Amino acid sequence: MLFTERDYYEDVVTMLNDRGVQLTDIAELVVFGQRNIIDLSMDIALDSVQHVLHKTEAQDAIMTGLAIDDLAEANLLPQPLQTRIDQDHGTYGVDEQIVMSILGVYGTISWTNFGYLDRLKPGIVGRLNDEQHNGGRVNTFIDDIVSAIAAAAQARIAHD
Amino acid sequence: MLFTERDYYEDVVTMLNDRGVQLTDIAELVVFGQRNIIDLSMDIALDSVQHVLHKTEAQDAIMTGLAIDDLAEANLLPQPLQTRIDQDHGTYGVDEQIVMSILGVYGTISWTNFGYLDRLKPGIVGRLNDEQHNGGRVNTFIDDIVSAIAAAAQARIAHD
Amino acid sequence: MLFTERDYYEDVVTMLNDRGVQLTDIAELVVFGQRNIIDLSMDIALDSVQHVLHKTEAQDAIMTGLAIDDLAEANLLPQPLQTRIDQDHGTYGVDEQIVMSILGVYGTISWTNFGYLDRLKPGIVGRLNDEQHNGGRVNTFIDDIVSAIAAAAQARIAHD
Amino acid sequence: MLFTERDYYEDVVTMLNDRGVQLTDIAELVVFGQRNIIDLSMDIALDSVQHVLHKTEAQDAIMTGLAIDDLAEANLLPQPLQTRIDQDHGTYGVDEQIVMSILGVYGTISWTNFGYLDRLKPGIVGRLNDEQHNGGRVNTFIDDIVSAIAAAAQARIAHD
Repeated sequence: MLFTERDYYEDVVTMLNDRGVQLTDIAELVVFGQRNIIDLSMDIALDSVQHVLHKTEAQDAIMTGLAIDDLAEANLLPQPLQTRIDQDHGTYGVDEQIVMSILGVYGTISWTNFGYLDRLKPGIVGRLNDEQHNGGRVNTFIDDIVSAIAAAAQARIAHD
Repeated sequence: MLFTERDYYEDVVTMLNDRGVQLTDIAELVVFGQRNIIDLSMDIALDSVQHVLHKTEAQDAIMTGLAIDDLAEANLLPQPLQTRIDQDHGTYGVDEQIVMSILGVYGTISWTNFGYLDRLKPGIVGRLNDEQHNGGRVNTFIDDIVSAIAAAAQARIAHD
Repeated sequence: MLFTERDYYEDVVTMLNDRGVQLTDIAELVVFGQRNIIDLSMDIALDSVQHVLHKTEAQDAIMTGLAIDDLAEANLLPQPLQTRIDQDHGTYGVDEQIVMSILGVYGTISWTNFGYLDRLKPGIVGRLNDEQHNGGRVNTFIDDIVSAIAAAAQARIAHD
Repeated sequence: MLFTERDYYEDVVTMLNDRGVQLTDIAELVVFGQRNIIDLSMDIALDSVQHVLHKTEAQDAIMTGLAIDDLAEANLLPQPLQTRIDQDHGTYGVDEQIVMSILGVYGTISWTNFGYLDRLKPGIVGRLNDEQHNGGRVNTFIDDIVSAIAAAAQARIAHD
């Protein structure tokens, strides 16, 4: 069977917006991630983010990760998974595994970009992370997903 | 912060049993996967499956994947994710991405074992797959997870 | 720095031909891998193989893997690496790791295709494998590389 | 066939030393990578590095990557691979692919540690990188390998 793929671009943009993430927030991460390497304009960064968000692999990872966050927030996951995710437990690695689908599309050079953003937590990544650790909503997957979109967008620019 | 890890072995065995999967079903996949390579006893195969199920990485992947199947079965996922998962759509790859956490622990040789089981669908893998495609419950993640546990258990035996 | 990428398509086709692998051999693997799923013509299969071979990630993996085989054949690798590679040692997994660069480009569904070809060893894969195990030249990387190109080409068709 | 695995620990330590890398250099990266997270002693860091270096997957990745650097340094690689590696071309990603074998052993949390070291290039990583970019020897693989060993050693500590 061959697949006629629908493009879920509008869906994933809406889901990100509903979680307080604008595409310009992600474009800022792209610019931040490339400082000291290349001087990127926000226009080029935003365009690359939009390209990444048109990829089926990225869309599925985003839809799945954001749904898990929301289900954890609604306390709908079975135990002990619920606790592992809502506490963002240090050895829980499925969030980082899932974003490999996004990173994989633009090759291995995106992994380094991802690790850099994930450790420094600039801009929206830090805000999402702080929100959860200050007792706010579950953002276990979304912070990795946002970093991965930005990392893939950087790799895409480097490849072009 | 250092983590004192709990072992969720009993939890994941119960979850698998609740979905109709016994550890002996997985051990049979181990024996099947190694036929024409080595002649494995069910005892050695079962012991290796149990070792894999004590790994934190495997436990998190199993708990997460089985929860997604159950939430899809209960129609609790947001659209369009709900439809992509309950129809086991051919380009949806998050199930295969998640099981990489299980396969990674015993190295790259487990990927081949996984692909072989995933394509031939012997024993319990075929039964889970048929159940879903015959209008039964959602098994989108569990069939990959069961194949991955067996693939990792084979790689663990090869490494020892 | 932005990269102006050269396309090494002609180089990698020549390298494969020099090792006795024609693109039609790989196209045959594509058709074999999809039997019982879709009925592919050799034309569609060959076209997809050619598309994969235009990807930078695939080109680098191919050039690197084939070079290692050749250096092992010429006995130019340091010990104990030389022996591990020329004996195609069962736990040596760098060959399978490298082909992940090829498989990654078309997403996780290509891993299953790869494992299936790698275990069944149809056509050219079996011939390369037999040559080495019958005392012929070192083919430790090329058999995985050829399977991975075919696996990626299958995934590319499924995505379209 | 079951494999009786030899431990190549002494071999890989010698190879690293021959390239000017001491295990204490890597232990320093472990401590650096965890600053602001946990306060690690050099003893704990060094012990974890030694554990990582006993893993077959790590040993094969190290032996292979260092051999490629040395062959590039000796101008023994075929073109155009020789130029892509000795110039450490920005889109060449096989070095980062290979170190996934090291990172995979201790799970996905090591990827972030790797990206952080790879971008900040502290200590020995920076020295190796500078040497190549100042016209010294080819260090295309070794800088990633050293970062990956340190990243895996950090993940191992977090898991314990």
